[in-house]
Order: sequence, then C-alpha cells, then structure tokens
Amino acid sequence: MTGVGHIRFGCEGALARVTLCHPGRLNAMSRAMWRELAGIFRRLQSGAAELAAVRAVVVAGEGGHFCAGGDIAEYPDFRFEPQGLRDFHEDDVWGGLSAMLDCDLPVVAAIEGNCMGAGMEIASCCDIRVAGAAARFGAPIARLGFPMAPREAQLVAREAGLATAREMLLEAAVLDAPTLLQRGFLNAVVDDASVQAEATTRASRIALLAPQAAHLNKQTLRALLPPPPGAALLARAYDYADSPEHREGITAFLHKRAPVFGAG
Amino acid sequence: MTGVGHIRFGCEGALARVTLCHPGRLNAMSRAMWRELAGIFRRLQSGAAELAAVRAVVVAGEGGHFCAGGDIAEYPDFRFEPQGLRDFHEDDVWGGLSAMLDCDLPVVAAIEGNCMGAGMEIASCCDIRVAGAAARFGAPIARLGFPMAPREAQLVAREAGLATAREMLLEAAVLDAPTLLQRGFLNAVVDDASVQAEATTRASRIALLAPQAAHLNKQTLRALLPPPPGAALLARAYDYADSPEHREGITAFLHKRAPVFGAG
Amino acid sequence: MTGVGHIRFGCEGALARVTLCHPGRLNAMSRAMWRELAGIFRRLQSGAAELAAVRAVVVAGEGGHFCAGGDIAEYPDFRFEPQGLRDFHEDDVWGGLSAMLDCDLPVVAAIEGNCMGAGMEIASCCDIRVAGAAARFGAPIARLGFPMAPREAQLVAREAGLATAREMLLEAAVLDAPTLLQRGFLNAVVDDASVQAEATTRASRIALLAPQAAHLNKQTLRALLPPPPGAALLARAYDYADSPEHREGITAFLHKRAPVFGAG
Repeated sequence: MTGVGHIRFGCEGALARVTLCHPGRLNAMSRAMWRELAGIFRRLQSGAAELAAVRAVVVAGEGGHFCAGGDIAEYPDFRFEPQGLRDFHEDDVWGGLSAMLDCDLPVVAAIEGNCMGAGMEIASCCDIRVAGAAARFGAPIARLGFPMAPREAQLVAREAGLATAREMLLEAAVLDAPTLLQRGFLNAVVDDASVQAEATTRASRIALLAPQAAHLNKQTLRALLPPPPGAALLARAYDYADSPEHREGITAFLHKRAPVFGAG
Repeated sequence: MTGVGHIRFGCEGALARVTLCHPGRLNAMSRAMWRELAGIFRRLQSGAAELAAVRAVVVAGEGGHFCAGGDIAEYPDFRFEPQGLRDFHEDDVWGGLSAMLDCDLPVVAAIEGNCMGAGMEIASCCDIRVAGAAARFGAPIARLGFPMAPREAQLVAREAGLATAREMLLEAAVLDAPTLLQRGFLNAVVDDASVQAEATTRASRIALLAPQAAHLNKQTLRALLPPPPGAALLARAYDYADSPEHREGITAFLHKRAPVFGAG
Repeated sequence: MTGVGHIRFGCEGALARVTLCHPGRLNAMSRAMWRELAGIFRRLQSGAAELAAVRAVVVAGEGGHFCAGGDIAEYPDFRFEPQGLRDFHEDDVWGGLSAMLDCDLPVVAAIEGNCMGAGMEIASCCDIRVAGAAARFGAPIARLGFPMAPREAQLVAREAGLATAREMLLEAAVLDAPTLLQRGFLNAVVDDASVQAEATTRASRIALLAPQAAHLNKQTLRALLPPPPGAALLARAYDYADSPEHREGITAFLHKRAPVFGAG
C-alpha cells in the first residue's frame, strides 16, 4: 500500500516550494493530490498574511521524478461513467491546473526524471521550466485508450506547441529534454544533479525583482490567452467514458498486459 | 507531355499510403490532383467498409521529392480572372487541404527532396512530419508575382511559425531540413534513404494505439484552432488576379526568363 | 548632454534605412524618437511619390547596438501619473510600433549588441530578424519596477514566444543570440561584423521580388493576428503609475543604486 500521495508545501524566505509526493508511483497524481494542489495555489493567491513574504514558487517532484501521470489505480472507480469522468477532469484536474494558472506569483518548474501526462500539464502551468538532461516527457495516454481532455489539450498544445502535442498524443512519443528545449517548452536543460539548484537560483532571482510588476505581467499574459474550449466541445468531451476502447486500455494496463484496440 | 499527374492510393494492413505523383514535375499539384486528394481524404474519413482497418495514413511524393508546388503550366488558364482564381484556391486547393485537416486519422508526412508551396501546405495538414536531411522547404511564390491565399497562409503560419512563413513568403527563402526541425515544423530529420521507413515506423506505431482516442484528440485540437480568415479578408483576396505583376511573374516563369516587377 | 536622440532615415535605390540614434545611450528610445519612428513608417506606407521606389526597409541601431530600451531619464516626467503613463504607452510607444506593423513594405531588422525592452518591441515589428553572435536580448523592466504594457506584451509574446516573454519579464533574463535563434525569434545569427551586410543582402533580395505580393502577404498575415487586448485589460493597465514599487524602481535606477522592492 503506497497511499494516495500528497503535496508537500513549505516556505523558505521568499520562496514557496510545492513538491509532488507519491512514493513508489513516481508521484502519479491522485484525485486527492489534485485537490491539494488546487488548495495550495489558491492559498498562495489569496494574500494570506503568513504567505505575504512569498515572491516565487518552485514546483518539483520527490525522489528524482517530476510526475509520471495520473494515478491509474484509481481510474476504474470513476472513469467509465461520463459524469464521473467529467467531474474528475473538470473539477479535480482542472481545479488544480487552473489554480496554478490563476496564481500571480511566478512559478518555476524543476523537472527531473519522468514528466508524463499530468506532469506535462502541471509543468505547462509553470512560467519557467528547468529540466535535467535525463528527463523524459510525454503524454502516452493513447496506450491507455483515452484522449486528453479539451482544457488540458489546449494548455499543453499552447505551451509545448502543436507539433509536440500531436507527437505525444497521437504517437505516444516520449521525448527527451534536449528535444523539449529545442521545441521551446523548456527554458534550460542542466545536469540532473543541478536541477533543484538551478530552479532555486532562478526563483531567488525573481524574488529580488518587483513583485507587483510580476503579478501585472502574469495578469496581462493570462488575459491575452485564446478563449477556453467552447461549450460544444466540452459537452461531448466525455462521451467516450463507457467505450470498449477506454475500458480495454485501462484494464490492460492494470493487468500488466498489452491492450488490444478494436475499431474504436 | 507529362499529363496532369495523379494521387496514388493504397492500403497495407492498418496503413493507408497517399502518394503525390506527377512525373517529370517533382509532383507539382495540378487541379486534378487537388480534387483527387480531397476525394481520397473524404473517403478515408467516411468510414467506408473497405477502409475500416485503416489506422494511420502516410503521405509522400514519388521519385525522391515530396511536392515542388503548384502546376504552373495550368495557371494561365484560370489565374488572371478573379473568379477563376478564387475557384482554384477556395474550391480545389482548399478542398484538398481541408479534407486532409478534417480527417480524424493520424497522418504522417514523409518528406524527401523539394517541399515547396503546395508541398508546404500539404505537409502542414499532416500531424507528424519526417524529412530527409537533404529536403528543402519554401514557398517562393513572390518570384511568380502572387501572394499566398488567406486560408493557406493561416495554415502555413500556424504550422511553420510566423517567422518562417514571412521568410518564405517575403524573401522567397528556401530553408533546409535542420532549420525546419529547429523551427518546430518537423518532428524528425533522418537520412534521406530512411525517410519512408521512418514514416512507416511511426505510422505503424500509431496503428497499435487506441484509434478512438486518436480521433478524439484530432477533433479536440481542430476545435481549438483559431477562427478561419474573416469574410472581409476573403472578399478582397483575389482582386490581384488581373494585375500586371501577377501576369509578369507567371509569364516570365513559363518563358524561362527572370521577371521584372514594377510598382505593384 | 546627449540630447533626446533621433531616427535617421535614408534611401538607397530600392532600400530605405531606418537607424535608431541616441549617442551615449545605446539608442534608448525617447518620446521624440517614438514619434519620429511613427512618422517615418507612416510616410513609407503613405505612397509618397519620393518613396515610390522603396521595396524594403532595414531597421538598425547606430554605433554597434540596436536599442537598449526606453530613455529612463525622461520617465520621472510622466510615468508616475496614470494618464501620462497611458499617453506614453498608448500614443507614443504604440504609435511607433503600430506604424511599423501597419507598413506593407517588408522590414528587416539588423540587430547588433543590446536589444532590450523597446529594442525587443521594435525588432518584434520587423518581418525578418538578423542578429550578430554577440547580440543580447531581454526586457528587464522588472528591475525598474514596472510591467510591460498589454499591447507590447502581446507583440513580444507573439514574436518571441510565451516562454521567452515570461523569462524576460518575470526573471529579467538576458538571452544571447543563439538562444533567440533556437526560440524562433531570429531568422539568422551571423558574425557581428556581418550583421548590416546580411540584412542588406536580404532586403535587396526582397526588393527584386514582387512588391504587390509582399504587400498582400503582409496584409493577410496581419489580418490573421489574434485580436488586440480587450478594453477591460487596457482600462486598468496603467493604474500602477503612482505605486511605491514603480517609483522605487525608476528612482533607484536613476540614482545608480539597487532597488528595494516591498510587498507590491
């Protein structure tokens, strides 16, 4: 039993540190972790007195990995029913991601090891992204028989680029850090041992700069983003919940066998 | 006499192969070829029983080139009259390109040799793009005295980036494969001899993944694209048909002399 | 006394040359220079008879630098009052930048040395960007206690990419020419001694191509851009004028001391 994981939060001077922790699961995001992530970023944004000194946030994963994706062990509980699937993506996942996106504090991602699926999404909500040379990136959910939800696909395509989003989603490609640097997703690739130090250095540099200007810049860039997915797209986005392909992908993964996909 | 070219279509297992064929013309796209291209992709999307096993499409050109552009020999027949020019771009060219874009099957481009003008546009409709090290890319129609049509310019600028689109259109620049990789247009550059194999490998990998998820991902990414060119832009887009510059560019090319462009 | 700087304008055959000149200030843009820049590009666009032969424009800076930013010495005169700040950004700065963007002639940037703040914005209005290997890029206004104005942030984020815009604005990062090439902002990086020659070569190549096609391509690409910042964003964009942080950043700079930023 590894538990459902948690998000560790701490402050040191002007820096807040948010750490994804799910031991033995490469920090796969459980529903509980998505909700904790939302709560932490909402608190950071709330102007709470005890966080008044925070000027920048570092997001990292525990134990040499950023985040390997969602917690697939939980999926049979809710994914095969449209409303349950919608609640998961629109409330839990998007609750966490939108809380990050709505935070006016600059956020630096420190990416070691696996950065897959939910990891790509969380990294896409960070303003600055630093990765180790051995980090690996992807969203190979086509192996699991399901597509990326519209809000999440828009986020990843915007930050990683359409070509990279398609390669990850359609081909289940896993790409390395130099490729993600070249594609414009990463700001820097450093030695794996230096990832946390580099992210901290950058966050500390941010912390010395004008905080109001940072907030205003983030508000401006956010206001300039394209509109969110339309109602028609969202209305049909979870109709696949009970499809054979979706069940087969997740069931095969949990039974540690290769999936066999039919006519869709 | 080389004929008007054609599009070869074939299926092998889960892969469909679409090959641009215009011998002696580096697969320049004639009007007939644009219409065939539209027909093939509409059929792929139609769910016809004999294509039910298809999971991915490879698009390539015959004879070591992807596509050198439009079939300029046909241009005097219709380009110098606004309605004829509009019909060509809005019906024939956009008919072919939009059929590709509207196809839910993942499409892999295998790009050898020249990928110019219409070639850039066809490649821009593919989801994954693999090129040979010696491939060359551009849209040097400013030598021919005419601009890119709005829908096509939006497509190329979106996929190749604004900077690359401007360099190709305003400077008639021809760029090499490493540059297009660095600009984010290509997913991979391989030995010229390996282009077809690499594209087939990627398409085969896609064919093993969840087909419904692929379709849904393509539908989502398509629904998130910016709106098409507005009516005002399209209304005036072909007013240049009868201009001296347009006639000079195409006439000079067909007479194998350098064009002399005046005051526009 | 170094004066308020000026914009030098000259034509040589089919090329116009626009040179940012502010001796001793690395061509920092004064209000007078922004207005001159607007006037020059409006004249280029006006179809004035004496400019009828112009086919392309090269924009450069004098004395080995492109432009180091705004003329901070002028800032205390108008920045600390919302209407004055708004007039500066919306009328002077955006007047110059929008005149560049509205010009149908192809514009090539020749970037040597510092390209910061206003320099990034002016370069972002050029169609083709060539830089020297030692050129440096950034928008470190977070050191000065203020954010980038919405229209300017939209421009820079669109041309340099969101990741680069955030790194420049939130981290006050200064990036080198190879990085800006890799990020897709630059079309080419050459020896520092070759920047002007390379830009002139490219502009001369453009000048031989079809001028009407260039104008139509620029009109099309411009019409396809995302909408400008909304009224709500612009309405509150200059509320920070009289804030302590804004005063501190500019005052510290002018007194050559490090700023001390408070709670924002």
